[in-house]
Amino acid sequence: MSNKVAVYRKEHFNAAHRLYNSQWSDEQNAAVFGKCSLPNYHGHNYEVEVRVTGEIDEATGFVMDMKKLSDLLQEKVLVKFDHKNLNLDTEEFRSLNPTAENIVIVIYNLLRPHIETSLDLFIRLYETPRNFVEYPVFIK
Amino acid sequence: MSNKVAVYRKEHFNAAHRLYNSQWSDEQNAAVFGKCSLPNYHGHNYEVEVRVTGEIDEATGFVMDMKKLSDLLQEKVLVKFDHKNLNLDTEEFRSLNPTAENIVIVIYNLLRPHIETSLDLFIRLYETPRNFVEYPVFIK
Amino acid sequence: MSNKVAVYRKEHFNAAHRLYNSQWSDEQNAAVFGKCSLPNYHGHNYEVEVRVTGEIDEATGFVMDMKKLSDLLQEKVLVKFDHKNLNLDTEEFRSLNPTAENIVIVIYNLLRPHIETSLDLFIRLYETPRNFVEYPVFIK
Amino acid sequence: MSNKVAVYRKEHFNAAHRLYNSQWSDEQNAAVFGKCSLPNYHGHNYEVEVRVTGEIDEATGFVMDMKKLSDLLQEKVLVKFDHKNLNLDTEEFRSLNPTAENIVIVIYNLLRPHIETSLDLFIRLYETPRNFVEYPVFIK
Amino acid sequence: MSNKVAVYRKEHFNAAHRLYNSQWSDEQNAAVFGKCSLPNYHGHNYEVEVRVTGEIDEATGFVMDMKKLSDLLQEKVLVKFDHKNLNLDTEEFRSLNPTAENIVIVIYNLLRPHIETSLDLFIRLYETPRNFVEYPVFIK
Amino acid sequence: MSNKVAVYRKEHFNAAHRLYNSQWSDEQNAAVFGKCSLPNYHGHNYEVEVRVTGEIDEATGFVMDMKKLSDLLQEKVLVKFDHKNLNLDTEEFRSLNPTAENIVIVIYNLLRPHIETSLDLFIRLYETPRNFVEYPVFIK
Repeated sequence: MSNKVAVYRKEHFNAAHRLYNSQWSDEQNAAVFGKCSLPNYHGHNYEVEVRVTGEIDEATGFVMDMKKLSDLLQEKVLVKFDHKNLNLDTEEFRSLNPTAENIVIVIYNLLRPHIETSLDLFIRLYETPRNFVEYPVFIK
Repeated sequence: MSNKVAVYRKEHFNAAHRLYNSQWSDEQNAAVFGKCSLPNYHGHNYEVEVRVTGEIDEATGFVMDMKKLSDLLQEKVLVKFDHKNLNLDTEEFRSLNPTAENIVIVIYNLLRPHIETSLDLFIRLYETPRNFVEYPVFIK
Repeated sequence: MSNKVAVYRKEHFNAAHRLYNSQWSDEQNAAVFGKCSLPNYHGHNYEVEVRVTGEIDEATGFVMDMKKLSDLLQEKVLVKFDHKNLNLDTEEFRSLNPTAENIVIVIYNLLRPHIETSLDLFIRLYETPRNFVEYPVFIK
Repeated sequence: MSNKVAVYRKEHFNAAHRLYNSQWSDEQNAAVFGKCSLPNYHGHNYEVEVRVTGEIDEATGFVMDMKKLSDLLQEKVLVKFDHKNLNLDTEEFRSLNPTAENIVIVIYNLLRPHIETSLDLFIRLYETPRNFVEYPVFIK
Repeated sequence: MSNKVAVYRKEHFNAAHRLYNSQWSDEQNAAVFGKCSLPNYHGHNYEVEVRVTGEIDEATGFVMDMKKLSDLLQEKVLVKFDHKNLNLDTEEFRSLNPTAENIVIVIYNLLRPHIETSLDLFIRLYETPRNFVEYPVFIK
Repeated sequence: MSNKVAVYRKEHFNAAHRLYNSQWSDEQNAAVFGKCSLPNYHGHNYEVEVRVTGEIDEATGFVMDMKKLSDLLQEKVLVKFDHKNLNLDTEEFRSLNPTAENIVIVIYNLLRPHIETSLDLFIRLYETPRNFVEYPVFIK
């Protein structure tokens, strides 16, 4: 068995959003998204778990320094989304509907270029303690 | 010793807000409230704990039916604030700054008329798992 | 200011129960207690927090050894209620309705004789993470 | 990489049960299941996490509307098990021992026919915060 | 009713310690403190909740800015205790036994001079999720 | 689909440690490990989740009795690490740096010989609620 280990770091950000498809009428948005589509936004305490998987470095005993993983999340993700309105304040969600599914892929794409290519990356995003998503799906 | 018991029910709502004093300049708001004052709002998963204190009714074994307490929270508080923008969508915070401190007093005042006068009422409100408030303060 | 400190220990037990007033008809029980009164019982993972308040002993730095508090809870409470049917298996709830309110007072009375009289005792009991009770009520 | 995302919804139900093999003597049941086999039942606050995995719908940004997933859990699972005695009140566990392992498979089979066939389904079930199970096992 | 509100901020620190009374023999320490007294130390993820109680400032809507409360905890408490050995690295516990009871009083005394005198202060300290303490005790 | 189920048991232990590579200078250790390398140790409330995966035994309804899994964790892991200094008190970490990554592999190797070979084993270890690791990595 290889000595691959998965390392997680969890952070949070607070943001406003609404679910909205700009190509639909307001009636259609209300019918599909319900109160999640109300025009003046609502918000969440998002929790984001980042998993990095790879071989342990023998000198450090680390797959990746969790402190550096935390700093990376801060610099590449939280600085963009924390205390922001996802629909109005971010280029990523100007035309993309900020569902949890779309947010988790955006976070993955923001982090992926900054993690060594030998390491796998996976994200779990909590919109609430009872609603959450994961990306990518490695099996099924 | 009396047979008074305190009964709690916990519910949640998701809302957007910003901290803002309309009598101040934008610079002053930014200086005092920092990123909590950003103009396009952010949001939270608020958790609200309601405590009702009183004598146990011998026939039911209840101080107050927690189901009724849950329904009351739904009807008097959550229906107003859940999936709303506190600054824009609610009469309570049109001119009152929606800090956690002010929100907890507003929730108390919304519920108090609907709880029997023989019962004491107390609210704890979580803005995040690490920031929370309580009202009223019975001792110090 | 005195050097009184409050010390807490949290334990859990799993039990079945139903809410039922034996002096009422089945219809009345159903009307008041709803699904909590269904005849074949349901159950909970109860969490019980015990608080003991008193002066710190200078030699040990303890108000009361939390290990002893844990053992006491085990011996006087959990052994009676854990993996039991509160209505059928316990003398305490043979005729007393096992609402959270009544259970918390019973737990208090089971522990009180075994805690030094110079120490104050207080119990919080979680029936679920969203329904909980406290006894006694020292203020209001 | 595909744009498959895993979407979770978490719900809870409170139920009574006992572990029991009807083909064994009472002694054998006691020897194998210990206090979990006591005759008058005990109970749990079960937490059930349902994961649905599939491609994001571009129009909605959803894999599956979490609200619909929550409703489905309510209609197909919670209505059967919540506030019930699993051994006595449900057809599923009349002859099947209600271990966490068997319950999680039953929940999967109750939901599977009502989820689109293009979507994968996976369940995690908490019997307590420290005892939980998952089904199916896609890898090992 | 006054408009006093209680405001909480929660932080954490990771530290090593052992329970030890230097005036006792090793046998006596072992007898009283058990494995908590093992000579090479063990450790905890301490969680500290600070409550500040006072009147709401009408201009800000704050009792005390939670961000400032967080900074104060960082500067006056965490910088001393985080990633330290309480017995060896801190002046406070060189001769004082670092029980949870003594730590919570030390934290109170470190913060009290830096909180306005019109505000009341109260601390809850978690040594583990199941062992915790509070100081001061305002009622009983 | 097979009737394989994954069964989890969660336990905890409290330990002191420091991150340290004995082949490096103190400066190099400080540069790489920061405050995690401070000489007098710090500590954590470690939470360990053990997952065992296999076919359900039809007679018991168990993959593996969670009580036996809990006992095994106690005997093979907790007795070695609980209330200990990982660097000083354990043979496993005398020369191996006790990073979360290395600890999780050590726990796996301590348990693997005592779990039936037909069952798969997987460990998640929390160093803090926000830093955790998993081993082995079955996919990526």
